[in-house]
Amino acid sequence: MTADPLLTPVLDRLDADLDAAMARLMNLLRIPSISTDPAYAEPVRQAADWLVEDLTSLGFDASRRDTPGHPMVVGHGGSGGRHLLFYGHYDVQPVDPLDLWDRDPFDPEVQDTPKGKVIRGRGTSDDKGQLMTFVEACRAWKAVHGTLPCKLTLFFEGEEESGSPSLVPFLKEHAEELQAELALICDTGLFADRVPAITTRLRGMLQEEITITGPDKDLHSGTFGGAAINPIRVLSRVLADLHDETGRVTIPGFYDGVAELSDDQRAQWEGLNFDHKAFLGGVGLSDPAGEQDRTPLEMLWSRPTCEINGIWGGYTGAGFKTVLPSKAHAKISFRLVGKQDPHAIRTNLRAMIEAALPADCSVTFETHGAGPASEMDTSDPAFEQARKALTEEWDVEAAMIGCGGSIPVAGYFKEHVGMDAMLIGFGKDDDQLHSPNEKYDVESFHKGMRSWARILAALARD
Amino acid sequence: MTADPLLTPVLDRLDADLDAAMARLMNLLRIPSISTDPAYAEPVRQAADWLVEDLTSLGFDASRRDTPGHPMVVGHGGSGGRHLLFYGHYDVQPVDPLDLWDRDPFDPEVQDTPKGKVIRGRGTSDDKGQLMTFVEACRAWKAVHGTLPCKLTLFFEGEEESGSPSLVPFLKEHAEELQAELALICDTGLFADRVPAITTRLRGMLQEEITITGPDKDLHSGTFGGAAINPIRVLSRVLADLHDETGRVTIPGFYDGVAELSDDQRAQWEGLNFDHKAFLGGVGLSDPAGEQDRTPLEMLWSRPTCEINGIWGGYTGAGFKTVLPSKAHAKISFRLVGKQDPHAIRTNLRAMIEAALPADCSVTFETHGAGPASEMDTSDPAFEQARKALTEEWDVEAAMIGCGGSIPVAGYFKEHVGMDAMLIGFGKDDDQLHSPNEKYDVESFHKGMRSWARILAALARD
Repeated sequence: MTADPLLTPVLDRLDADLDAAMARLMNLLRIPSISTDPAYAEPVRQAADWLVEDLTSLGFDASRRDTPGHPMVVGHGGSGGRHLLFYGHYDVQPVDPLDLWDRDPFDPEVQDTPKGKVIRGRGTSDDKGQLMTFVEACRAWKAVHGTLPCKLTLFFEGEEESGSPSLVPFLKEHAEELQAELALICDTGLFADRVPAITTRLRGMLQEEITITGPDKDLHSGTFGGAAINPIRVLSRVLADLHDETGRVTIPGFYDGVAELSDDQRAQWEGLNFDHKAFLGGVGLSDPAGEQDRTPLEMLWSRPTCEINGIWGGYTGAGFKTVLPSKAHAKISFRLVGKQDPHAIRTNLRAMIEAALPADCSVTFETHGAGPASEMDTSDPAFEQARKALTEEWDVEAAMIGCGGSIPVAGYFKEHVGMDAMLIGFGKDDDQLHSPNEKYDVESFHKGMRSWARILAALARD
Repeated sequence: MTADPLLTPVLDRLDADLDAAMARLMNLLRIPSISTDPAYAEPVRQAADWLVEDLTSLGFDASRRDTPGHPMVVGHGGSGGRHLLFYGHYDVQPVDPLDLWDRDPFDPEVQDTPKGKVIRGRGTSDDKGQLMTFVEACRAWKAVHGTLPCKLTLFFEGEEESGSPSLVPFLKEHAEELQAELALICDTGLFADRVPAITTRLRGMLQEEITITGPDKDLHSGTFGGAAINPIRVLSRVLADLHDETGRVTIPGFYDGVAELSDDQRAQWEGLNFDHKAFLGGVGLSDPAGEQDRTPLEMLWSRPTCEINGIWGGYTGAGFKTVLPSKAHAKISFRLVGKQDPHAIRTNLRAMIEAALPADCSVTFETHGAGPASEMDTSDPAFEQARKALTEEWDVEAAMIGCGGSIPVAGYFKEHVGMDAMLIGFGKDDDQLHSPNEKYDVESFHKGMRSWARILAALARD
């Protein structure tokens, strides 16, 4: 590997400026931009404004774009080379249960851990820390060379953690402005500690909220218990019946459009030597809990899932209350793969639940978003260039992997802007995304910036 | 029916003093004595002190008796005649969901409704309003005759709605002081609108809280979903499997000690012409939801139940969060009948749940109280005297009925003080006990006082 006269000083600058970059990230992390809870609309807007100001200081023509929901941030800058769009999201997940956090989720700090330094706080990994790796790579390039490396569009969303209701309308309306040769998305992870990856396969998502109503008011279980239907009991049955005893989802037609792995794909995934015992052991588990006849990587990357993300009903406070509640609720999400149709699955789920209800119960549904799975076209030479850049930075062969998560924006870019996407990120499995004590390794942040600097150097020349 | 020279002026006094009696009840209702929530310990104590002061003003030797939990109130007064103990409880249920209340639960008011005037507020029916019917009967007797009608012990508990943890120790320690010829308990209802009743059969209770743990932290369902076990899914299955498809409870040995109705009892209950369509229709239901081969009155009075009173886990706020939670929780209660053994059922429930768990899940249990069912010995002539007094007041034959609720104190009086109990109360099925907008009919309050005055007149002479 020979030193690159354009790249090397940028990497040096990133090393020298790391403390200042962390301080900037801390400022962004302190803004509680929880998008799913309407009470936090103002901090979400503040985070957008913070980014607009930062991008403007780097020479981007940046602005906050208000939507019916939370705002988008769009910045245009640089010229020449390959025109790239970078996507990240500046909103974060809620923080409850707050009592499981070791500190205020929005008072981030750098902590020493047995595995190295980490930045602890909500949004560190998902996705403010990842987003800032790209911004810092741009900043260093600008500082060293006085310009950005190529023509760049930066596009930040504030609704990724709440179903992206404004995203598709915004993409449709601004398709021309957002058009680039390739989208870069930084919301994924390493394949393993210090093993970089390009994610080429994403699961889709369907999110439904279910409310089952029995009696028209909360009842005393002494007066009515035994004769009045209990909606929690009905909900438990409905939810239990979503899986059969082999772990398969029982919704009619659920597996329509789910393809088997090709032999090539299977061989490549076997070559990854995924250590599912370490993966599950890290969260206190040992047995893969999905379909019994599937490998752990299939369960995570190529098979659809049905998860209950929340359930509530009746008395949930301290002590006991012998209430027979009127209503019981659940939030259910499905990770989708292949050509599964989220709308057909929603229809079939609803019909199945309605058919299972006793006569005295009714059900209402609320949808929280739906998007199909997506697979990237890796024949674009950018994938090989980026893989090479990642391999050079991390000194280990970068992997092409699947991802259990859902990043619908990749599919939307393709569908509404006609733009392919490449997903590269630096999160780790133990980052506790969406959980208490979320963290981002300082190594992820530092080598993430350096990775983007290398990738920009490689792609800008094209 | 001839006028009773001792009773008639007391009834007149109760009629004349109704507004003042309601004002006194309002003062007691304004004290938020929620016993299950430790945050309300101080108001619970205030309610006890309020009662001590009121009883003292009636000439009782009354005092607050502190316990490791909430205090008891004991008052002794009167002399001669039959020595009666009266029991009620001054604590109340929690008030959530608060947004379903039409007004502040602790700012009671008298409201006109299509069915007549009601007192609206937490504890109006359960049990402050009922408790005060007896106190007001004593007050009127004292005002008219200068003395109480007979030797009386008043005994008020502050933990009835939170499993009565201090009750049995207190009864054991003060068995001699609390000894009377008969206990009167006012925490039950009319059989139907304007049809008074003596409750002779009470279901017992077992309350358990279950926590199932899967992963050792909350996870991102994208990263882990499909491979990591979801404790809400496991809990749903466990809860769904507590009943079979005919509505029977599946816990091994659950029906041990459940007797069939005698032919006499069955005939008597059939004679009550219970209108289950009206009963269930009043809460928006139509189909009796218990064991398929049982009548609605059996479901309510003579068959045991299993109800899920609360369930929670994962994200339950606004919007959506694709969390795969570490823990899922439920509160379950069982209404018990006959000779069912709550401790054996608890053991078998726990064993059944533990056996059903996947290897990666664990469960913890917390008990919130257990007491067996009880049946009164109606051969004591007091039952017939009280029935006659009730029949005179309400001008319709009083019924001997069962009760779906659990009033363990009746069994405890028998077991620990050697005292039989007679249960008479004036609540109605639509009082919304334990629910938002709890109420007590002004008619229940007014005729309740008058009923106690009549019963005291009848029993005092014995």
